[in-house]
Amino acid sequence: MMEHMVQNTGLIAEGDLVLLWFDDERTYMIDVVRGKRISIHCGKPLLADDWIGQPFGKKVVCEHGFAYLLKPTMEDLMMKASRESGIIYPKDAALLIMKAGIRSDSKVMEIGTGSGSLTMALAQAVAPNGHVFSYDRREDLPKNAYKNVARAGLSPYVTFCQRTASEPFTEKDFDAVILDIPQPWEEVLVVKQALKPGGRLVSLNPTFNQIEKMAEALREQGFICVESRELLEREILARAGKTRPVQRMIGHTEFMLFAIRVSEEVQQVPDVNS
Amino acid sequence: MMEHMVQNTGLIAEGDLVLLWFDDERTYMIDVVRGKRISIHCGKPLLADDWIGQPFGKKVVCEHGFAYLLKPTMEDLMMKASRESGIIYPKDAALLIMKAGIRSDSKVMEIGTGSGSLTMALAQAVAPNGHVFSYDRREDLPKNAYKNVARAGLSPYVTFCQRTASEPFTEKDFDAVILDIPQPWEEVLVVKQALKPGGRLVSLNPTFNQIEKMAEALREQGFICVESRELLEREILARAGKTRPVQRMIGHTEFMLFAIRVSEEVQQVPDVNS
Amino acid sequence: MMEHMVQNTGLIAEGDLVLLWFDDERTYMIDVVRGKRISIHCGKPLLADDWIGQPFGKKVVCEHGFAYLLKPTMEDLMMKASRESGIIYPKDAALLIMKAGIRSDSKVMEIGTGSGSLTMALAQAVAPNGHVFSYDRREDLPKNAYKNVARAGLSPYVTFCQRTASEPFTEKDFDAVILDIPQPWEEVLVVKQALKPGGRLVSLNPTFNQIEKMAEALREQGFICVESRELLEREILARAGKTRPVQRMIGHTEFMLFAIRVSEEVQQVPDVNS
Amino acid sequence: MMEHMVQNTGLIAEGDLVLLWFDDERTYMIDVVRGKRISIHCGKPLLADDWIGQPFGKKVVCEHGFAYLLKPTMEDLMMKASRESGIIYPKDAALLIMKAGIRSDSKVMEIGTGSGSLTMALAQAVAPNGHVFSYDRREDLPKNAYKNVARAGLSPYVTFCQRTASEPFTEKDFDAVILDIPQPWEEVLVVKQALKPGGRLVSLNPTFNQIEKMAEALREQGFICVESRELLEREILARAGKTRPVQRMIGHTEFMLFAIRVSEEVQQVPDVNS
Repeated sequence: MMEHMVQNTGLIAEGDLVLLWFDDERTYMIDVVRGKRISIHCGKPLLADDWIGQPFGKKVVCEHGFAYLLKPTMEDLMMKASRESGIIYPKDAALLIMKAGIRSDSKVMEIGTGSGSLTMALAQAVAPNGHVFSYDRREDLPKNAYKNVARAGLSPYVTFCQRTASEPFTEKDFDAVILDIPQPWEEVLVVKQALKPGGRLVSLNPTFNQIEKMAEALREQGFICVESRELLEREILARAGKTRPVQRMIGHTEFMLFAIRVSEEVQQVPDVNS
Repeated sequence: MMEHMVQNTGLIAEGDLVLLWFDDERTYMIDVVRGKRISIHCGKPLLADDWIGQPFGKKVVCEHGFAYLLKPTMEDLMMKASRESGIIYPKDAALLIMKAGIRSDSKVMEIGTGSGSLTMALAQAVAPNGHVFSYDRREDLPKNAYKNVARAGLSPYVTFCQRTASEPFTEKDFDAVILDIPQPWEEVLVVKQALKPGGRLVSLNPTFNQIEKMAEALREQGFICVESRELLEREILARAGKTRPVQRMIGHTEFMLFAIRVSEEVQQVPDVNS
Repeated sequence: MMEHMVQNTGLIAEGDLVLLWFDDERTYMIDVVRGKRISIHCGKPLLADDWIGQPFGKKVVCEHGFAYLLKPTMEDLMMKASRESGIIYPKDAALLIMKAGIRSDSKVMEIGTGSGSLTMALAQAVAPNGHVFSYDRREDLPKNAYKNVARAGLSPYVTFCQRTASEPFTEKDFDAVILDIPQPWEEVLVVKQALKPGGRLVSLNPTFNQIEKMAEALREQGFICVESRELLEREILARAGKTRPVQRMIGHTEFMLFAIRVSEEVQQVPDVNS
Repeated sequence: MMEHMVQNTGLIAEGDLVLLWFDDERTYMIDVVRGKRISIHCGKPLLADDWIGQPFGKKVVCEHGFAYLLKPTMEDLMMKASRESGIIYPKDAALLIMKAGIRSDSKVMEIGTGSGSLTMALAQAVAPNGHVFSYDRREDLPKNAYKNVARAGLSPYVTFCQRTASEPFTEKDFDAVILDIPQPWEEVLVVKQALKPGGRLVSLNPTFNQIEKMAEALREQGFICVESRELLEREILARAGKTRPVQRMIGHTEFMLFAIRVSEEVQQVPDVNS
């Protein structure tokens, strides 16, 4: 929580991340470390020391061209994350966080750590009073995920766990679980045990076949409100006298499947006179 | 913050909101108040007292049919908000929160309180360490907004302010500002003064004419990264052997326009030997 | 062909269809028959006799309100067709006709006559030198299809046939075949025999399961260029100063699957010196 | 018309166009000319003479790989057209032809010949009994358009005309007019005079601003049913067990604006006793 407080002075501090934004839309994500020389395409290297104590939003004139020192948003962090695998898009992460009821005190499980880009978004959403447990079956540590989460200053809100598929979870009482794995139906039973009654489940998968199979598995296990969504994001070029949608767009990322775990217990209607 | 903590036991407490979900997709948002009798379509009234101390997710058998006691998400709160005007959709609220860099310590300005549905989403995103100042030009209090925010337990994170168009803001140093008014360009100058350098601006408008005019006004005032998006959300019916998109969808809600305020100050490149 | 010629004077003739278009967007499709009195919502009945010899596009002042006498397009004919089953949308019909290479001399097979709305579009596309053979398994005549095709003046270009599923076709050498049935894969073998080498196949189905199964069946039978498309049509309200997409849209109609039958024969590369 | 008849034997004839389709999705559009040697990426050249008299759909084994001899559709012709300017997409051409009521006897005007790709689609739609007049303001001949239309065997159905903007048309009584120019509103008055009453108008433009301005100009001139559409085409990869939309798509081509010219004359309701 401290690091958030520090950043929010609006001044650049040691340890911050800065998004260096050039007018030609080239961008660089830079860790502000004392003594660091930043050698990029703009000519003579820039010195991180010069940035410390300066406000975000400041213009930096380089040998060739100029840039702005921006405070990265979660979107920037996700799109710039080091990765070896596919990406979860900000639009999808944002919607699933809202639809799964995730907020600043939620206990959230992620199955399929991947490169940690979704982990970052979840961690920021649960900060400062919640926590994310991120499970992956890989034996080697999910190095990119560690690195990305740490760099974003979100490590206090994340525990990374190695775990074999279908293995029960030692942690319990999750408010929400996000599955980002190819065969999510194999985990439905153990996930159900780890979710609070009323807890929310989200599965992210690129094919129709996966969401269909997962939807059926969830219904069989008594989940309710099983529904699926896709989001299409389109850029609009807004310019005087010639506003139009952009010609190329991303036509597909993931289908998102949502469901709610309910309690097995039943409460009978009271016998009152109405 | 306390009320969040209380709710997150997973047990229904007095003062909580419960989403009563029936299998026929009828839903009711209920304040859990001692002694309350809930008379709805399912026959004999239900008693709120019976719910207190029970876990969310519990099934309630009514005289006719049954229902589940769900913990509402921000999506539920937004879609069920009392309102006299148009709605901001959860998909749009979720994306703009992420793209504006809003998180649990942000100071956010909303111009155009409306029915307070976006106010709720912003308040939840900044809780527990940030704050939302929501401005509206209406002389009478934005009653629905008050009611919706209070009901969601988010009043500690919101200050409602009455203000004439173009009037300077007494509050300063905002991390982000969201404009949801018909003529946002009239506010660009005063908004710029109230935003931190590096702060993010979002304007929501249904017509292309509005985003075009606003985009030009922002560029004139030196905002950078002026870009616009629209989001299309499509439901997929995922059912064994017959999975397909749903036949009707919402084809348009709002265009979202994003921009970043930068500092007027310029930092020269250091004269180092590279 | 004669009826086309007659219609194309631009004057309304006996036997023509007229789309009566009211300013409140109510429309009626009327057969121009001598002596006919047209009793609709606009007060005193209109007399078809008064229209004969008048130009299309003429304004008719009724007792209440006014209307225009329009010449229906294929879109109008399809959307106004009598039907007992689902509709093929004009956007899909138009694209499949183009992608299947259908033109004014094509021999086209339709499997699944339905209400004949696609039959009409195919018939107009092959007129005046091509022909459509439309097959349906129903023992009773597809009455709506007959009626719709006849009413549109397209009967000379269509032969309706009753046929059991999987039964070989007596007609051969089709340029294109359109399948609009729930289990198109059952017909792949016989369809292949009836298509010319190089002939084009289109299958229309609402679920992804159907197009997946059909795509696999086609690949197994040696079809090439097996590819699928969906079309989303969005209305834009273009009005001075407030142009925007319409809020509601059709989110899904049919997936269209395309493929090409190739010849079994192989031609070897000539042994030339290059 | 003759060349259509010849082509439709299903056998390749001299003068035909062949789409040579390789399995790696490389395609070549080839004029079948006696004596021609086709030198492409597949090793030793192919001889056009070997193809004459063979059926379309035949497999050709080359030195490296193999290909199929396909009969190009209008989609193929449009996507492979020689061009110096933007393209009209087949999806848009197909829908506008249907919505404008264009068929095998229509008299159609095109304003803005461009590279002739839309001209080809219109010409095929009006063949064999209709005609397309294609106007362009360029003083030099629209060479690509000539070439593309001739190559497709559609020259008999097209007359190319050079014309200054706003100049009245010598041809009259058009069934439909398609405008594909940047400032279509400058032509509304003269176009109205050249259209039959009841005739249909379509304007293709990439920006919101253009369709808004054109829509207003059309309403001022008394056109009715002024409405706009956009079409989004998405490819679906249909493959056993892993069917999903393709990740990249075209997000915008043209907005299409439709309108109908009506007659100035008015017919009064008959004074009958109902």
